[in-house]
This record gives sequence, C-alpha cells and structure tokens, in this order.
Amino acid sequence: MPEPQLAAWRDRIDAALEHALPGPDASPRPLHRAMRHAVLLGGKRMRPLLVHASGSLCGAGPEALDAAGVAIELVHAYSLVHDDLPAMDDDALRRGQPTVHVAYDEATAILAGDALQSLAFEVLAGAPLDHGTRVELLRTLASAAGAGGMCGGQALDLAATGDGGSLDIAALEHLHALKTGALIRAAVRMGALCGRADHDALAALDRYAAALGLAFQVRDDLLDVEGDSQVLGKTAGKDAEQDKATFPALIGMEASRARLAELAVEMEKALAPFGDRALALRRLGEMAIRRDR
Amino acid sequence: MPEPQLAAWRDRIDAALEHALPGPDASPRPLHRAMRHAVLLGGKRMRPLLVHASGSLCGAGPEALDAAGVAIELVHAYSLVHDDLPAMDDDALRRGQPTVHVAYDEATAILAGDALQSLAFEVLAGAPLDHGTRVELLRTLASAAGAGGMCGGQALDLAATGDGGSLDIAALEHLHALKTGALIRAAVRMGALCGRADHDALAALDRYAAALGLAFQVRDDLLDVEGDSQVLGKTAGKDAEQDKATFPALIGMEASRARLAELAVEMEKALAPFGDRALALRRLGEMAIRRDR
Repeated sequence: MPEPQLAAWRDRIDAALEHALPGPDASPRPLHRAMRHAVLLGGKRMRPLLVHASGSLCGAGPEALDAAGVAIELVHAYSLVHDDLPAMDDDALRRGQPTVHVAYDEATAILAGDALQSLAFEVLAGAPLDHGTRVELLRTLASAAGAGGMCGGQALDLAATGDGGSLDIAALEHLHALKTGALIRAAVRMGALCGRADHDALAALDRYAAALGLAFQVRDDLLDVEGDSQVLGKTAGKDAEQDKATFPALIGMEASRARLAELAVEMEKALAPFGDRALALRRLGEMAIRRDR
Repeated sequence: MPEPQLAAWRDRIDAALEHALPGPDASPRPLHRAMRHAVLLGGKRMRPLLVHASGSLCGAGPEALDAAGVAIELVHAYSLVHDDLPAMDDDALRRGQPTVHVAYDEATAILAGDALQSLAFEVLAGAPLDHGTRVELLRTLASAAGAGGMCGGQALDLAATGDGGSLDIAALEHLHALKTGALIRAAVRMGALCGRADHDALAALDRYAAALGLAFQVRDDLLDVEGDSQVLGKTAGKDAEQDKATFPALIGMEASRARLAELAVEMEKALAPFGDRALALRRLGEMAIRRDR
C-alpha cells in the first residue's frame, strides 16, 4: 500500500476532527479543552483509517467517510478518557501526554468523555449521506459502543482484572471481541455501508475486521510485556502488575506470536477476493501486527 | 388533565424501558444490573411523559413516542449516574435508593452510564418512524445531550460549585437552560417531530418547554431548601452545603416563588393556541411547579 494514501487520509481525518470539536475558547472552556486534549493530541487514527480504506474499496465518497471516521474516533477517544480514570485503569500517561483527568480533573474527564460520545452521534446524524444510510451507521456505531460491545467488554475486563487466572483463552478472545473488536468491526462496516456494499462484501470485510481486532489486541498484550514506555507513550508492564488476563499470560509469548501469524492469514483470506482494491486494508492489517506502539 | 392518561403513558414507558434494557442475568451481569438499577428503580418519567404529551397533541403514534421517550429517559438516567459519582456531586442516595456507584462500584457506574447513553441512540435508530424523522430525532437528542447542552451545563455547574456567589441570575438561568433545559426542550421537540409538527407548532411548543425547564429547576432549588429528604428520596440541603449557585441563594425564596409564577404564565401563553389538545402538557407544567419531590 502506498503510504502517501494513508498519510493523506490521516490528514483529512485530523482536519475533520478539529472541525467537529468545539473551539478551545468557547464556554465552557475546561470542558471543550478537555475534549480537544482527548482527541487531538495524537493517536494512530486506526479506526477512521479503516473507515476510509474499507469505504474507498466500496466506492464511497470521502466526505461521508470523514464523518463516519470522526464519529468512530470520538467514541474511541471517549472510551480512553473513561478507561484512564482512577476508578478504572488509573493511568496517568496516554500518547506521551498526561491523561485528561490528570491534565484537568476527574469530573471534567467524566463529562468530556460523555460529551464526546454525544458528539459522535451528532456528527453521524449530519453526515452527507441519504437518511437510510445514516440510520444504519448510527445503529452500527451505537450497538458496537454499548453493553453488547465496547462497554460490555470493558466490564468483562474489569471483572477479570486482579484475577487474571480465571479466564480461559476462549473467554479472553470473547472479552476482546467486545472491548476492542466491536469498534474495529464497526469501523470497517461503516466504511462499507457508506459505499453501499452488498451482503457478500460486508461479510468478507467483517471476517477481515474480526481477525484484525483480535490481532490488534494480541499485539497490544505483547507490547505491554516487551514494549518501551517511551515509544508506547503509555506505561508498559501494567498488565502483569494488575494481574490482567492477557494472551502472553495465558498461552505464553511464543504461542501469542503464532496466534498473530494465524490471524494475518485469516485477514489475507478474507481480503483475497478484492485483489488490489484491498491494498489499504492489507497495509492496515500489517501495521496492527507489526506496530511498536 | 385526566390523571388516568398520564398513568397509562407512564405504564407504557416503564414497560418500554424494561424491554429496551439488557436482561439482569445476561453477561456481563454487574453492568446490566447497574444499568437496570439506574433506570428501573423509580423516577418521575417527566421527559418521556413530555414526549407522549407533545407527540399525541401533534398526532404521533404511541409506538414511536415510546421509542423517543425511552431514548431520552436513558440519557437522563445516565446523566444522573455520572452526576452522583464521588468526583461530581458525590451523592449516596437517589430516588430513595443507593446510587449506582454505591450499590455497585465506581467503575461499573461509569460504564453503566456510558452504555445507557449508547443504548439511547440505538433505540432511537430503531424507532418505528421513517428514516428522515429518525435522523432528526437522533440529531436533536445528541445535540441536547452534549457539550452545547446537558454536559455543557453540568460543566458550568461544576465551575460554579463552591463559588456560588460568582454567578448572576442571567448566568444561572443560562446554566440551567443547558443543564436541565436542553433535554426537556428536546423531549417536547422529539414528541412533536414524531407527529411531523409544522414550524409554528414547534416554535410554540419550544417556548412552553423552555419555560417548563426553567420552572423545573427553580422548583428543584426551592425543594432543596424546604424539602424533606424522606419525600425527596435524595439528600436535601446539599446545595447550601456545597455553596452552589441556586435561585433562592441568588434572589431569595420569595422572588424564586414569584419567578415560578411568571414561568407558569409563559407556559400557558405558549399553549393557548392548542386549546384543550394541550391539557396533558398543561398538567405536566403544573406538576413541575407544584411537585414535592
């Protein structure tokens, strides 16, 4: 995949995020600044890049993909703000910056997360698409974000934290299918919906996205063991410290790396029918597997 | 207004909320039970009743109004869960029951609130209405819930807490126009949108809703001074203790009661053109002004 295409999409996404967020000087300033802190200070933009890659494969227009990408990135950003709170993962560092509750305060962090979630749906409701597609995008995102998706996965993760030994590998994969998988699958699906993909294309892309979501998490767990806090931009070694269920803890480093390789094969199988049109999705899959942060 | 009509709507709403929420025994159980705790253990159902009253005035069907009412009540319920958190208002009692973070824990309360917000938009995306109306409802609710509405008002409230003397009456009314007013106006508007109300009807109903929202808050402030914790189901006297800006603190009890009476007149003026069709909205206005909890 030509890197310039991903870089161009990333620029579009950053500009669209900046445009969607309230200005830093409008009242109430602490809330608006906390929202901007949560979204604009870095991030890989993995989910909106998946929206663009999947959508452009399906022939969607870039403005619609910007809106869908912004919405899903806002949901992702809000979830990080809340996950970092003292009552949750209690993290002080994210993307090499103080987390929102450290830079502001806990109450503002809770509210900023809440407002980012609302903004995601507001942006999507105003996307330049026909009403039927907008409703389908809204339903996809809301369902992936809620108790049957991301929030449910985070609840399972909380229950397993400090009790890492109680999950088996199937339960751990289920946890991550909800916690990170649901939103990654939603990203790929939303892009495809913007391009009015047919049933077969949606199903193949969903197989790719499910494998990618899991690969992303396996790599995350490996990085927490062997990564460098400096490069990661967050504290390494926290999983073991908190006795979290992780792939390395459950099946070891070697088997975790082997699982990653399997998932790479699953992604390629799912994308094969699309040929060269899937180059961007392939490149994003590779990045998820090889990333060092 | 015949009370039986309001009671019948309340029964519909409670049944629709129960139906929309995840079951208490499905995994992850603590999350689902916390969500149900937040929504099903009482509450006046003011906002969904406004949806039904406004919608039936405009000729909307009851199933669509159930969906819109559920969505707005879920947003209201999530906001209470987060507002009660230790980092926010730190309340242990709500509707005569332990608050969610007391009955469960803080992390579960944060997640339950987040998941309730997602569920609100999911329910609305699936409402039995044409796509265009659904998009308009989604946009209305998202915009009322976010930084330009409820979350923004809560942020202004946090900034003023412990510094009650710094707001003037205009700033206090602006704070409440966002914090409680935005969602109440959204409720009335969403009902009217379900019935495809015309521009003039929407404008008149919005004048009613803006007055009602403010009246609701003035009454809330009065109750905090003169109310009974037992009847209120929450701790009375907290505003003064936290040095919050309130109507009684700023203009006194007498002037606060006079402001309530003015708002009653504003409501009646806005509803006059609808004649007897507005009986339910009138009754809800009276209840907001006379309630003792």
